[in-house]
Amino acid sequence: MKHVLFTIFGATGNLMYKKLLPALYHLKIQNRLPEDTKIICIGRKDFTTESYIEDARSRVNGNVNWDVLGDILLYYKMEITNSNDYTILNEYINQNCAPQLDAKIFYLSTAPNFFPIIAKGISDAGLVSKNDGISRVIFEKPFGEDLTSAKTYNELMNRYFDESQIYRIDHYLGKEMIRNILVVRFANRVFEDIWNNKGIESVKIIVKETEGILSRGEYYDAAGALRDMVQSHMMQMISLIAMEPPMNFDTDELRDEKVKVIDKLSCCPIDLNNLIIGQYKGYLQEKNVKQDSNTETFVFIKAKIDNERWSGVPFYLITGKKLDEKKSEIVITFKDNSSAYKKWKPGSIMKNQLIIRVAPNDGISFQINTKLPGLQMDVAPTVMDYCHSCQAIGNLPEAYERLILDMIEGNTIQFTRWDEIESSWKFIDDIKTKSNLEQKSLMVYETYQELAKIIEKEYGVKFE
Amino acid sequence: MKHVLFTIFGATGNLMYKKLLPALYHLKIQNRLPEDTKIICIGRKDFTTESYIEDARSRVNGNVNWDVLGDILLYYKMEITNSNDYTILNEYINQNCAPQLDAKIFYLSTAPNFFPIIAKGISDAGLVSKNDGISRVIFEKPFGEDLTSAKTYNELMNRYFDESQIYRIDHYLGKEMIRNILVVRFANRVFEDIWNNKGIESVKIIVKETEGILSRGEYYDAAGALRDMVQSHMMQMISLIAMEPPMNFDTDELRDEKVKVIDKLSCCPIDLNNLIIGQYKGYLQEKNVKQDSNTETFVFIKAKIDNERWSGVPFYLITGKKLDEKKSEIVITFKDNSSAYKKWKPGSIMKNQLIIRVAPNDGISFQINTKLPGLQMDVAPTVMDYCHSCQAIGNLPEAYERLILDMIEGNTIQFTRWDEIESSWKFIDDIKTKSNLEQKSLMVYETYQELAKIIEKEYGVKFE
Repeated sequence: MKHVLFTIFGATGNLMYKKLLPALYHLKIQNRLPEDTKIICIGRKDFTTESYIEDARSRVNGNVNWDVLGDILLYYKMEITNSNDYTILNEYINQNCAPQLDAKIFYLSTAPNFFPIIAKGISDAGLVSKNDGISRVIFEKPFGEDLTSAKTYNELMNRYFDESQIYRIDHYLGKEMIRNILVVRFANRVFEDIWNNKGIESVKIIVKETEGILSRGEYYDAAGALRDMVQSHMMQMISLIAMEPPMNFDTDELRDEKVKVIDKLSCCPIDLNNLIIGQYKGYLQEKNVKQDSNTETFVFIKAKIDNERWSGVPFYLITGKKLDEKKSEIVITFKDNSSAYKKWKPGSIMKNQLIIRVAPNDGISFQINTKLPGLQMDVAPTVMDYCHSCQAIGNLPEAYERLILDMIEGNTIQFTRWDEIESSWKFIDDIKTKSNLEQKSLMVYETYQELAKIIEKEYGVKFE
Repeated sequence: MKHVLFTIFGATGNLMYKKLLPALYHLKIQNRLPEDTKIICIGRKDFTTESYIEDARSRVNGNVNWDVLGDILLYYKMEITNSNDYTILNEYINQNCAPQLDAKIFYLSTAPNFFPIIAKGISDAGLVSKNDGISRVIFEKPFGEDLTSAKTYNELMNRYFDESQIYRIDHYLGKEMIRNILVVRFANRVFEDIWNNKGIESVKIIVKETEGILSRGEYYDAAGALRDMVQSHMMQMISLIAMEPPMNFDTDELRDEKVKVIDKLSCCPIDLNNLIIGQYKGYLQEKNVKQDSNTETFVFIKAKIDNERWSGVPFYLITGKKLDEKKSEIVITFKDNSSAYKKWKPGSIMKNQLIIRVAPNDGISFQINTKLPGLQMDVAPTVMDYCHSCQAIGNLPEAYERLILDMIEGNTIQFTRWDEIESSWKFIDDIKTKSNLEQKSLMVYETYQELAKIIEKEYGVKFE
């Protein structure tokens, strides 16, 4: 890889300033970008490259040497709804970039309703063609609103691009501790034989947020927690935890195994008794939220994966806004040791737990039982800790840094494949449809404790 | 338990000052001794109780309030080779103790050649009788010098005492982290299914000392490392690590399982190729050591336990004097994860390890592989640590404190039973006899590194 072009649509948007520019900058100063990398930043605003950088300076956090970015960045003003402009863009690229590019990356960082227009635009203008071997098109979620819309949308995209050219970002897949799941599961013998229903009692996938919906009322009210969080990040987490060992970690066989997990989840109709949906008090007063909205801001699901490995093991998914803390983690609770009760009373020992902390405090906790110091032969749980961020030299790479490298290298493994999307929408749609049909009541909550109490009472499982 | 008598022979000896008095004192101030506990300290020296305490004050380390010990302690002068003196001792006890004792503990803290004399003395004088339900007789090692002498000695003891009255101390069994082995093994599901030849690649039992033989030349030159360390502490360590789960942890079924392990070790003739014996340079110049002594001060054994659980797993025992560090620990090395090599090159990941640190720094290390922080998908081993002593409120109890409580409570489980002694002597005798017969050469070493290098070269296993 030598000559690489990024064309970013929506270059004056939030994602650009908060994630993409910092990630590109970090990669650049670490010499991780190919030698000749150009970034064409496309927007409707009337900037020059200089004034775009001047403006970005105040919007991007952190310590950025703008001269470095200035060397590789060009601002390009165009009207993305105007098909002619794509032809001119093509000429502009030809003038400013190497004649033989090794990778052409089109990053669609706009509102989703522009995706079809941009897709058609870049395709018709000959910027991208199917299977041209160098073009990749990057999308951020949401990938539709349900299975039907996702299918329509996907068919449209397939007119212009081959599946292998489509990079659907789930930024969770760029996170250090999500990538670490593969290592923890598959590079440690101690977990190999018990990573199944013989050894594991339950799995909890937790994504809690303290914030409300902020200024995203319009998007969020149409989406809700199921679509916003469960369909994407939490499906990725559960599939990495539950998948069978892939034949190969660096090929599509990895995604093959992941999608089988989601298929198993979506194959079996969900029992509404295994679902709690909630809405935080005050949600209806948020800006751009319908007066009578029944959008859920909290979901608890007791799911099951009905295969040989996981039959009988509950997978608890819990996510929501305005909860007690911001935390994303996976809790693997192992079963009791069968010998233990010959000696220790139930309750005196705790079950072994492996906690993969995605954020904050990236790391791993491992809880085992040991002898309590002292003259008695008493037992107490002990937490052994691994702090991932403490081991890093400098800062941990941000999710987008890794994902951008994957785009350049043409590595799609850590992006969401269409069948993953399809299968996860089936899972979500089933829940949505049934809970609407049966008018599943939405629990209005003020604090997380109210929810945690109910879950503990009804499902016998604690969520701290 | 209310009325308890300790009669300690050898009360002016080293063990008394270094271990027994401090342990009794700590138990007393923690209110762990029964209300009416008397300690009769027997020696040949011409002390009164007052002058004994006065003398002990300078010999016992640590902060001791001697008024507290003075309340429960009596010095009694007698000639232990004089049988009449035992009758007078009996009268003295009757005068000074409660008429109905709940426990009578005779602690033989003298040179072993006095054991038969004292045993006969206390028995003839009616201080102890077989199966009287309250008497216990406590011995320190050595329990013979080989199987024959141990048997002779044991038969003699059996004339006077029942096996259930005989408490053979292996102070390792009072150590916190040795007691913790049971908890780590049997209260943690994560280790349950892999604690066998399917999950474990090797076990290392390590007891390294930096000191030489100090002033114990006479004892040590007759004993050597095999008798001094392997026959006792290391047999206990290996049996706790390797035994089958006992039906019951608080009965003799625990010792039944332990002795089965030693039986398996001693059943199979040892291959002398799996043995290294050494003697530190300068040993022959030590006081009370024979000029041409071939006593080993270092032993390395690659042993095997040929049962279903352990077939194929090497158990490495390594112990010696004048080595690089003072350390006692057990290293469990797990096998490789079978999936791992599909992704990671051999050598880039380390095998999982569980290290039980007996001393110093009592605790547990657990080594797993995790993702190395950064943009690459590289793997590195990470050590998660549990510090046992850090968890203690105040100091950790010394081994003798726990063992003294067991004596009072009449709990023999953490003492060495005759069949354990018998079986471990068989193991040691086999090695001794064969290595003598075949004139196994004694390696003279100056540093531990010389030994470690040879072991690594010949057995492919590292001992740091």
